[in-house]
Amino acid sequence: MIVILEPEITRKSSEFSELMERLSNLPNIQVRLHEEVGVKQTLTELYLIGETAALEQADIEALPGVDRVVRISQEYRVLGRHRDERRPTWFEYNGVRFGQDNLNVFAGLCAVDNPEHVEIMMRTLQEHGQVCTRMGAYKPRTNPYSFQGHGKDCLPYVFELAGKYGIKVIAMEITHDSHMQEIHEALEHTGNPTGVMLQIGTRNTQNFELLKAVGRQTEYPVLLKRGFGITLEESLNAAEYLASEGNRKVVFGLRGMKTNMGDPHRNFVDFAHVPAVKRLTRMPVCIDPSHSVGTRDLGPEGLLDVFHVTAQGVIAGANMILVDFHPNPPKALVDGPQALTLDELPFFLEDVRIAREAYERRRDLAQKFDAEQDKKKGAA
Amino acid sequence: MIVILEPEITRKSSEFSELMERLSNLPNIQVRLHEEVGVKQTLTELYLIGETAALEQADIEALPGVDRVVRISQEYRVLGRHRDERRPTWFEYNGVRFGQDNLNVFAGLCAVDNPEHVEIMMRTLQEHGQVCTRMGAYKPRTNPYSFQGHGKDCLPYVFELAGKYGIKVIAMEITHDSHMQEIHEALEHTGNPTGVMLQIGTRNTQNFELLKAVGRQTEYPVLLKRGFGITLEESLNAAEYLASEGNRKVVFGLRGMKTNMGDPHRNFVDFAHVPAVKRLTRMPVCIDPSHSVGTRDLGPEGLLDVFHVTAQGVIAGANMILVDFHPNPPKALVDGPQALTLDELPFFLEDVRIAREAYERRRDLAQKFDAEQDKKKGAA
Amino acid sequence: MIVILEPEITRKSSEFSELMERLSNLPNIQVRLHEEVGVKQTLTELYLIGETAALEQADIEALPGVDRVVRISQEYRVLGRHRDERRPTWFEYNGVRFGQDNLNVFAGLCAVDNPEHVEIMMRTLQEHGQVCTRMGAYKPRTNPYSFQGHGKDCLPYVFELAGKYGIKVIAMEITHDSHMQEIHEALEHTGNPTGVMLQIGTRNTQNFELLKAVGRQTEYPVLLKRGFGITLEESLNAAEYLASEGNRKVVFGLRGMKTNMGDPHRNFVDFAHVPAVKRLTRMPVCIDPSHSVGTRDLGPEGLLDVFHVTAQGVIAGANMILVDFHPNPPKALVDGPQALTLDELPFFLEDVRIAREAYERRRDLAQKFDAEQDKKKGAA
Amino acid sequence: MIVILEPEITRKSSEFSELMERLSNLPNIQVRLHEEVGVKQTLTELYLIGETAALEQADIEALPGVDRVVRISQEYRVLGRHRDERRPTWFEYNGVRFGQDNLNVFAGLCAVDNPEHVEIMMRTLQEHGQVCTRMGAYKPRTNPYSFQGHGKDCLPYVFELAGKYGIKVIAMEITHDSHMQEIHEALEHTGNPTGVMLQIGTRNTQNFELLKAVGRQTEYPVLLKRGFGITLEESLNAAEYLASEGNRKVVFGLRGMKTNMGDPHRNFVDFAHVPAVKRLTRMPVCIDPSHSVGTRDLGPEGLLDVFHVTAQGVIAGANMILVDFHPNPPKALVDGPQALTLDELPFFLEDVRIAREAYERRRDLAQKFDAEQDKKKGAA
Repeated sequence: MIVILEPEITRKSSEFSELMERLSNLPNIQVRLHEEVGVKQTLTELYLIGETAALEQADIEALPGVDRVVRISQEYRVLGRHRDERRPTWFEYNGVRFGQDNLNVFAGLCAVDNPEHVEIMMRTLQEHGQVCTRMGAYKPRTNPYSFQGHGKDCLPYVFELAGKYGIKVIAMEITHDSHMQEIHEALEHTGNPTGVMLQIGTRNTQNFELLKAVGRQTEYPVLLKRGFGITLEESLNAAEYLASEGNRKVVFGLRGMKTNMGDPHRNFVDFAHVPAVKRLTRMPVCIDPSHSVGTRDLGPEGLLDVFHVTAQGVIAGANMILVDFHPNPPKALVDGPQALTLDELPFFLEDVRIAREAYERRRDLAQKFDAEQDKKKGAA
Repeated sequence: MIVILEPEITRKSSEFSELMERLSNLPNIQVRLHEEVGVKQTLTELYLIGETAALEQADIEALPGVDRVVRISQEYRVLGRHRDERRPTWFEYNGVRFGQDNLNVFAGLCAVDNPEHVEIMMRTLQEHGQVCTRMGAYKPRTNPYSFQGHGKDCLPYVFELAGKYGIKVIAMEITHDSHMQEIHEALEHTGNPTGVMLQIGTRNTQNFELLKAVGRQTEYPVLLKRGFGITLEESLNAAEYLASEGNRKVVFGLRGMKTNMGDPHRNFVDFAHVPAVKRLTRMPVCIDPSHSVGTRDLGPEGLLDVFHVTAQGVIAGANMILVDFHPNPPKALVDGPQALTLDELPFFLEDVRIAREAYERRRDLAQKFDAEQDKKKGAA
Repeated sequence: MIVILEPEITRKSSEFSELMERLSNLPNIQVRLHEEVGVKQTLTELYLIGETAALEQADIEALPGVDRVVRISQEYRVLGRHRDERRPTWFEYNGVRFGQDNLNVFAGLCAVDNPEHVEIMMRTLQEHGQVCTRMGAYKPRTNPYSFQGHGKDCLPYVFELAGKYGIKVIAMEITHDSHMQEIHEALEHTGNPTGVMLQIGTRNTQNFELLKAVGRQTEYPVLLKRGFGITLEESLNAAEYLASEGNRKVVFGLRGMKTNMGDPHRNFVDFAHVPAVKRLTRMPVCIDPSHSVGTRDLGPEGLLDVFHVTAQGVIAGANMILVDFHPNPPKALVDGPQALTLDELPFFLEDVRIAREAYERRRDLAQKFDAEQDKKKGAA
Repeated sequence: MIVILEPEITRKSSEFSELMERLSNLPNIQVRLHEEVGVKQTLTELYLIGETAALEQADIEALPGVDRVVRISQEYRVLGRHRDERRPTWFEYNGVRFGQDNLNVFAGLCAVDNPEHVEIMMRTLQEHGQVCTRMGAYKPRTNPYSFQGHGKDCLPYVFELAGKYGIKVIAMEITHDSHMQEIHEALEHTGNPTGVMLQIGTRNTQNFELLKAVGRQTEYPVLLKRGFGITLEESLNAAEYLASEGNRKVVFGLRGMKTNMGDPHRNFVDFAHVPAVKRLTRMPVCIDPSHSVGTRDLGPEGLLDVFHVTAQGVIAGANMILVDFHPNPPKALVDGPQALTLDELPFFLEDVRIAREAYERRRDLAQKFDAEQDKKKGAA
């Protein structure tokens, strides 16, 4: 049960204290506080967990300071869409908006290898008007004897170069809670020249301890990749771990599922789930065409499969794209075969623009159709 | 090994007889004849099967009447794309072109239930400029006690109504070789008012006896659906069965794969394979959004998931769409929950048009990019 | 709804005609007749299909000649186990019993290649006391250019040699309904020296037309292999197709599922489903260790994985084993790498004996435990 | 490349220092030290990682203190079996042997709920001669709002009760590296009354940071569960992470794979992989029948599917069984529906004994057969 407080009530209000006392006395009920801090106002919500079936909705709504109560039947309490839903489907971070209604491209290096490549990448992004990127410092590898990423050692130059070239958000995978502190320290040390979106990879989607730790901080937004061998429902529950601990700034990432039914692609591309995630939750949806496809195979029109599946995600409403580029793919330390070249960046961005425009025309068409249907019903 | 004959050589030429005699004497080699009958000329090919590794390509090319020889390493001999490939990626049937470069919509009834519904469907299609449809007479059902389709009894009225409303091609599933004869007789009996594309469903993708029987006739083109539990390679081999028996007019259909990783969709939508099939073979690619998605769930923009995945297939170059409509979905005998209503037809067609236009712009962009890259290399 | 008639009632009884007339007049109800012909008596059952929810069980039980009525909620009407079930879980064919309580080994050739190999195989089987075998004449192959089996040409010598060496039942895959006639003719022509169990392979599990045709005959029992890419429920429904057409002598075969999660085995071995199939249906369960494992890999104890998975199936109650042997595996035309050698036959049979004995001890233990539990409850 | 030192050489020997210096000077080569501490002697191995292809095996074997050199081509360097392999396939911990040649049962509570249940469980185990158990304190749950385990609070009473009832090893899942310290402290605090085998669950199989942390300690052995959505090879690589950091005392656990092809079982039982893991690596193999099956469904013989799949694992050579019992399953906080009752413990142990005896007879049979084959070859 979600208890949404009146707009003017905050945790410092006297009504708040009174309300909390009342709720705390309910038998077998736990109360968790969530605050959605917006530009103009803060939305305060209380989550009642436990034997809520025994509560009367009207009783709770009658308590002082309560605006309305949403009884939730589905599992995704914080991030889910519920009936009578007016909670936001977007958030802002370091000046960049992440919402179910807009689109950000995160082109960059799968794995940071050296300062030269990082700088070439960042400069090229700036030249093409980009303010986001991906940079991998901590790399989870299947084989223990493979290159494991440069870790915290590369953070200072990555952040400085990001600042130099106007990058506002870097998506960066972490694999242990201590990495958050390392990132925080490196950002502080370099004067906070950029922002970081913490990325949790597909092998850690159900690493619940990491989810809890990341969910407890609200400094950085989170990109949670779908687990490649679990159901969508289970992955959405994993996202809910983040939110249940307090961090609601979560983007959900599709990156392909692990089954040989997806051959000749590296994974089975799952971007048909873009609208499903947007329907079930309030999270913006990211697609990762590079890891889904995993090759540079080319369709007969001269378009790479990576381009094709990107367009497929975007025309169905994807909100973020994570895509591997490299100044010299054959020399990339990780996943070189799937990386795009810097030459291809403007071509890729233009291709994305065409698909996004098509999506927007489709969205307008749906509104027009709905309006016509309403009119027909009105006339009937 | 494919031996492509000179354009003027046909099976009636004297060079042909001579050549066949020579080839027939090669040890451990079988020869199969294929003719690709085009509008202006017939392309005659001979497939050498067996111990071809022992043959010298130059020796065969030196034989009388031989234009060139293609040594094939891949499995899809007839339908595959091979190096130095100039064979066609399209065919024509009853005045309709099916190619890797164009798009046909087959909206219609998953299962024929009664003449009234068939007529309403056909009339609506004509009103919206459509000349193709889908009509299910023979229905393979998981449960033996479910409705199994009206079979041959419904064929006469289906064909007559198709003729009345200008439908040129009906996609119709068959599940036994005897159905071809039934269709042939019903068409003859009604004066051949329309054409039929034989459809082989996902449960029969590896019903090799059916494939051979269907492949031996060339009267009707074939839509082969991908097997929902086998690899893409295995399904492409199944298509090759049709071609190896003589029928090269094959469209390959994607319809979703069977795994709960696709939930909440009925099947795991596999339209990311559209460019892969077009790269590996010369077949036009069909998508079946209705069976892939299997629900009428709606994204937050007011667009059904069926619309979204259709747009995904089309923006990546799909050439044919098989989609379920019904005048009264709740009364449909089969798969009602996924059917679109007739009201939605113009909306659907417009949505497809937007996606197709985006595909064509992407294709043009790729050509422009290639031209630029060539120029750069030329300048360098 | 199953209407079980009194033991003395047959289709020739006057009560039978009267009853059929009454039932035929029920609105929206179809009646199908099933006869389970036993050694001592024939059990006659009527299956009411359609709107049976509207019927009162007591009304039907009051009709003349009716012994009792079983209302069925589950899908497997004929083959399923239902509450208050006393129908048999076994059948006999050509002197061999196939039941949920015994075990038959079908060692033999995956594909018949020549009379010499067939004779060596048959003779070796006889030397080791075997009366069943497997022999593949019609081979469904993924690639159209692979060897497709010798078909009907090999049947005469296969059947004659079987007779010569005392083989009573040959499991033989068919892929088209016409093969039944070919087998029938070859048996007649050779004087019916042996029996045949028709085998339907995993690629035809949902070839419903083949299932119906095979189900309509009751001359030969059927081994239906599970579909390798569909759920168990769907495969059990396929078995029900056979039974719904009249043939209840069906063995259900487990042969591994198609997913790379089963690597390094060729398929994902699914013999844990042996008890599940026996619980859900009345069919004996066959295991196919050769196709499941697909290699001759060896555990560190010197036991092949093929032996290990066989033992796994048997210790859980499997009733039939289909296993590939070959006098000269490297020369086998199909699936040589997985075949056992004739030297290994006595070793294999002894290994099976150990596992079967363990199963029987486990079964006895369960009865003892149940008896003790009952005693405790009685004492309490 | 593995450099195995002479038995008398340890890290304190002067030859050791000299050798290390020589190896450290090799270009692009890293050296890692592994010590296998046995009862009588310590086996010291050096792992050379990097550009080992450039090294001559003979050169390295000629260095002082080197016994022999194994060049490894496969991925599992430490845990794998390599040609000319004489490294041990077992280890000992707290007086209990864990090897590829013996069998230990770990019956116990999936989740610790209260001291009463723990005590009842421990006492019952002692009554039936058991010295190992499973006890879950840290529970990873799909849903953030489910019970997450009592964590470190329950450790003191769990350990004390274990000591009281003679339990020597408790398998206990951990989900964060800090849990190791908590366990260590609780053991110290209670006077080390028992031992702990750290268990890493299927959701953390590729949580590489956890693997590294657990691998760096050698106080506790580790049970690594297979990832339920990744290939066997990937899971074996995860085990290698543990070993590559220094802990070779690893048991590999099979627990079923996540796909609906396993229905009606909760997971697709994968115990056919028991011999495969034993062939590819030197790890003992554990099976988890409770989580694989996930129900108390019963075969027609009166044996639970949990019993059947346990027997399947054991007859193929499984070395450890992790199985859920509960004094009162309906009250269990986690996974009650799959738990066995304490009444069933002696029945279960007897069933396991029958299957293990069958395995041992099969192993003897294999040796006999091998001996016969050798004799035949000798005679020939």
